Amino acid sequence: MKAEIIAVGSEMLTPHRQDTNSLYLTEKLNQIGVTVAFKTIVGDRRRDLVSAIRTALGRVDIVIAMGGLGPTEDDLTREAAAEALSLTLRRDATQVAALHARAASWRITMPPNNLKQADVLEGATLLLNPNGSAPGQFIDTVFEGYRKLVFMLPGPPHECKPLFDAECLPRLREAVPPRAIATRTLKAAMIAESQADKLLAPIYSTFPDVHTTILAHAGDIQLTLQCAKPTLEEAQARVDELAGKLEEPLEDWLYSSDGETLEQIVLYYLGLRQSTLAVAESCTGGMIAERITSVPGSSRSFLGGVVVYSNDLKISLAGVSAELIAKHGAVSDEVARALAEGIRRRTGASIGLGITGIAGPSGGTPAKPVGLVYIAVADLLRTDSMDRTFRGDRQRIREWATQQALDVVRKRLM
Amino acid sequence: MKAEIIAVGSEMLTPHRQDTNSLYLTEKLNQIGVTVAFKTIVGDRRRDLVSAIRTALGRVDIVIAMGGLGPTEDDLTREAAAEALSLTLRRDATQVAALHARAASWRITMPPNNLKQADVLEGATLLLNPNGSAPGQFIDTVFEGYRKLVFMLPGPPHECKPLFDAECLPRLREAVPPRAIATRTLKAAMIAESQADKLLAPIYSTFPDVHTTILAHAGDIQLTLQCAKPTLEEAQARVDELAGKLEEPLEDWLYSSDGETLEQIVLYYLGLRQSTLAVAESCTGGMIAERITSVPGSSRSFLGGVVVYSNDLKISLAGVSAELIAKHGAVSDEVARALAEGIRRRTGASIGLGITGIAGPSGGTPAKPVGLVYIAVADLLRTDSMDRTFRGDRQRIREWATQQALDVVRKRLM
Repeated sequence: MKAEIIAVGSEMLTPHRQDTNSLYLTEKLNQIGVTVAFKTIVGDRRRDLVSAIRTALGRVDIVIAMGGLGPTEDDLTREAAAEALSLTLRRDATQVAALHARAASWRITMPPNNLKQADVLEGATLLLNPNGSAPGQFIDTVFEGYRKLVFMLPGPPHECKPLFDAECLPRLREAVPPRAIATRTLKAAMIAESQADKLLAPIYSTFPDVHTTILAHAGDIQLTLQCAKPTLEEAQARVDELAGKLEEPLEDWLYSSDGETLEQIVLYYLGLRQSTLAVAESCTGGMIAERITSVPGSSRSFLGGVVVYSNDLKISLAGVSAELIAKHGAVSDEVARALAEGIRRRTGASIGLGITGIAGPSGGTPAKPVGLVYIAVADLLRTDSMDRTFRGDRQRIREWATQQALDVVRKRLM
Repeated sequence: MKAEIIAVGSEMLTPHRQDTNSLYLTEKLNQIGVTVAFKTIVGDRRRDLVSAIRTALGRVDIVIAMGGLGPTEDDLTREAAAEALSLTLRRDATQVAALHARAASWRITMPPNNLKQADVLEGATLLLNPNGSAPGQFIDTVFEGYRKLVFMLPGPPHECKPLFDAECLPRLREAVPPRAIATRTLKAAMIAESQADKLLAPIYSTFPDVHTTILAHAGDIQLTLQCAKPTLEEAQARVDELAGKLEEPLEDWLYSSDGETLEQIVLYYLGLRQSTLAVAESCTGGMIAERITSVPGSSRSFLGGVVVYSNDLKISLAGVSAELIAKHGAVSDEVARALAEGIRRRTGASIGLGITGIAGPSGGTPAKPVGLVYIAVADLLRTDSMDRTFRGDRQRIREWATQQALDVVRKRLM
């Protein structure tokens, strides 16, 4: 069955706001076998709203409108749905009482406009909204000779999503033939999206029943495999079979076969080896520590580190020698190694990570261009280092450098 | 004039991807006085595409379709537009030659399918795309008796946006009555969105010709004022008049009258006072340093800092005494003050910032719940401290704490 999601609200037609509820709804709809064929974003003009709802009724089986159910004059979804479906609105007495009770509990006088929220489409069921004053509505109706399921939901995400889960999904499951979905997420670091697709497309394209998507961000590749079958066992078997075949060509770019983040994997291996990590960051300015400490429980393996932006701090906090900086420059292989070794020594961590580079936009030279980054990792026995030159703006260079540094630690631990 | 933006591509009907081009286009369209009345997202099915284009032609003056112009079988925007407009497609000889030349320059044999990209709507103008093989198209035509401007653009953002700027905007400016737009952005820290709106709505609602939007994120409020008038002077005067009236009730929550970020403002004041800053972070794990160092040139005033997750590091890197931690706990006002004073002393910075707290999800107690954060700022003469309890998940608590800490530094500098 095909659905259309209509997001109602003029603010989502500005350059500043986007509908995001629909991503959540789409995931849940796909899981029960409903395809989202269209999404429409429409403002708070009644004529436009009627057009959007009528268009949707003409081309899909399930119409889900979000927003425009509040008490203000701009909230017109009820009226527009009634017009599009040629139905009348009746004022629901129970709902009127509930609105009065709600206002009383807040010790406010209810503006008369609020009663709009008690208007119900003839033949519709009210969907009680525990998180707001505007209830949703559902109607199983006929439009131009075809059966249509129409849902109206409030717009705020914390009202829309729970109400969708509680009131829409069960009704849709009854209307849609049952099926089970299995999902698996593989993740890889520091391989280009085009290279990954070139390696993997010949494999996943032989699994037409598994839907494979690749998402890429700053050195991080996420492959999502999804399969729908009559039983979960069948779906899981196909997903696992494809995952197994994709893992081999990904070699050690692959860091997770089940969706973990790179920082989670680094912390997992640190725990496994009973190792601890400390970092000395220059160009990434705290981004590496921030990513690691975003994981709950990271304090078990991550001791902390230093952000040594100035040369003085490289010397005083990370124990780099002034002579080394004078001789090789702050952005150099030698200083990266000294940072890794220095922070390890100073903190007593089993592993020290050092990074120095030029994030830009200024500060580059022909010999040391913007984007050049030196990364070193040290343990008690040895120090390894590498350099890379990343392209893009300051933010992008810092993100790539952070990803590369975490990947270096992962490989050292494996 | 009213526009509809149609984003074409089945990937944008999955839970994983969203159209973002339309935000860029909307901003540019608004600036020349065009309202975006609808956005539609449609997949790569021909029947659906024809429905989307025909619906748009029936309700707006300007239709902009993005995507579906490539060489594959899934690229059907040309064919769908021809069907919706009842026009034929002709194969453009110059474009065929250009496609052959492009393939030759890459030393590849062109698959015959590629020639689709030379198909042009009868009466349309090709929009040459320097960043890809698929050109855009523009037609000034009549649909059901009304004039319609129809643009087809490639989907990839780095092709779509430059082509829109170079080829669509000039044509639209000719078609739309001229006007000038002035914009101003005010920013405030640590005031709740509802509180800001309660203070400000009575003021901005008396300026109906200035469009005011409020965006909020983790203790950061952004107020955007936009006004369109026949001349820029008139528009600017109205925006400035409203901005002046909004500044007063915002008191010292207001940190920028021109859109700068809080970290930019902190760095601005540090520069003005010829001061330097160093930070000692526990619960924020590097997020404060990361935000400050995201600003180019931050190294002039930001020396760096330490991420002291473990107690040992609080002692060894930030100079906190073991007795103090034992007596008051690592999350305490006393330790925050010692972190601020310690990092200032160790780095020689004029200002030291210390922060310690419980980011969760575990580690809270009745006396010190998850979300409790102590922040201290020290200079040579005195140390100030505060505590706050933030709600939400780990990420949200860290973001609020970071924002609060930056705001504390800003206020100390003012």
